[in-house]
Amino acid sequence: MARWQPNASQRLADAALDLFAERGYDNTTVLDIAQRAGLAKSTFFRHFENKRAVLFGEDAVTGPLVAAISEAPPEATPLEAVGRGIEALGQSVFTPAHRAFSARRRTAIEAHPDLQEREALKGLSLTGSIAQALSDRGASALVARAVAELAALALKVAYEQWSDTDNADDYGDLARRILSDVQAAVSK
Amino acid sequence: MARWQPNASQRLADAALDLFAERGYDNTTVLDIAQRAGLAKSTFFRHFENKRAVLFGEDAVTGPLVAAISEAPPEATPLEAVGRGIEALGQSVFTPAHRAFSARRRTAIEAHPDLQEREALKGLSLTGSIAQALSDRGASALVARAVAELAALALKVAYEQWSDTDNADDYGDLARRILSDVQAAVSK
Repeated sequence: MARWQPNASQRLADAALDLFAERGYDNTTVLDIAQRAGLAKSTFFRHFENKRAVLFGEDAVTGPLVAAISEAPPEATPLEAVGRGIEALGQSVFTPAHRAFSARRRTAIEAHPDLQEREALKGLSLTGSIAQALSDRGASALVARAVAELAALALKVAYEQWSDTDNADDYGDLARRILSDVQAAVSK
Repeated sequence: MARWQPNASQRLADAALDLFAERGYDNTTVLDIAQRAGLAKSTFFRHFENKRAVLFGEDAVTGPLVAAISEAPPEATPLEAVGRGIEALGQSVFTPAHRAFSARRRTAIEAHPDLQEREALKGLSLTGSIAQALSDRGASALVARAVAELAALALKVAYEQWSDTDNADDYGDLARRILSDVQAAVSK
């Protein structure tokens, strides 16, 4: 049992993951999720627009990532600035305590096209935020967009590997290594 | 007036573009589109699932692009193979005759979030197809995904510039130049 009392949004997400695993996404209703979490249906709708949104509550990633990119030293290249952002995620978001939840979340998303689509759109939004942060640092539009695409790919591949419960890597180390591999892959 | 008789799918798309420009996407119905095209509503639904789909009829891009990547000489690098694919699009899909339609289509898409979302998902699907084609040529998974991201970005930026009616570039030349700029941008 977690030692801290999870908030309603997290309790609803946990309940949804239980139910999606037990009976599938299509066979789970918003009422089922609220009841499993011990909350009212109206509470669900205070936190999420619909069932499809329950695994996409807080955007915990964009804020710390963009802040770290913005705060990188002015002389850092766009790729170096992105590396700072990735480190920040490993320290504050994708911590060992979150690995088990992330693994279950990823399994649920991969099992249903609606959730895959939502996750993909979230990824596009993140890519746009990275490009904007790089552009704000003075990168040209094309450099900002290209580096953002590679960064988003590295974050995604790292998340896939890290959220595998057999993996014990630090997220930041893993993602930086993958970003470096990705860059090498397109440099020849 | 076009010298060839457009097919039903193209007539519906043209009618939709007229109506979206005149009264907006939200104020246009499927029946409006069918009537403007001089076709029955049932004909609309033989071609498109719903209003949102009317500008996403034929996927004319994936086929020629993937075929040209697959047919590139075995010694071509992943980036060179993608360059062949881009050339093929300039020759067979994004031809001067299609520029005016593409410009109107792009204006309509940028005006409504539903269409933007659909276009973004189409782009993700194309990226996946490019990565698969590169992987089938023997590229590692990470190389295939990284090169596919850069290729998709170059295709998108080139489409944005080319579909500007003031632009007179050949699509293939433009996209190859942008791909080269994108690669240079991430190589330092």
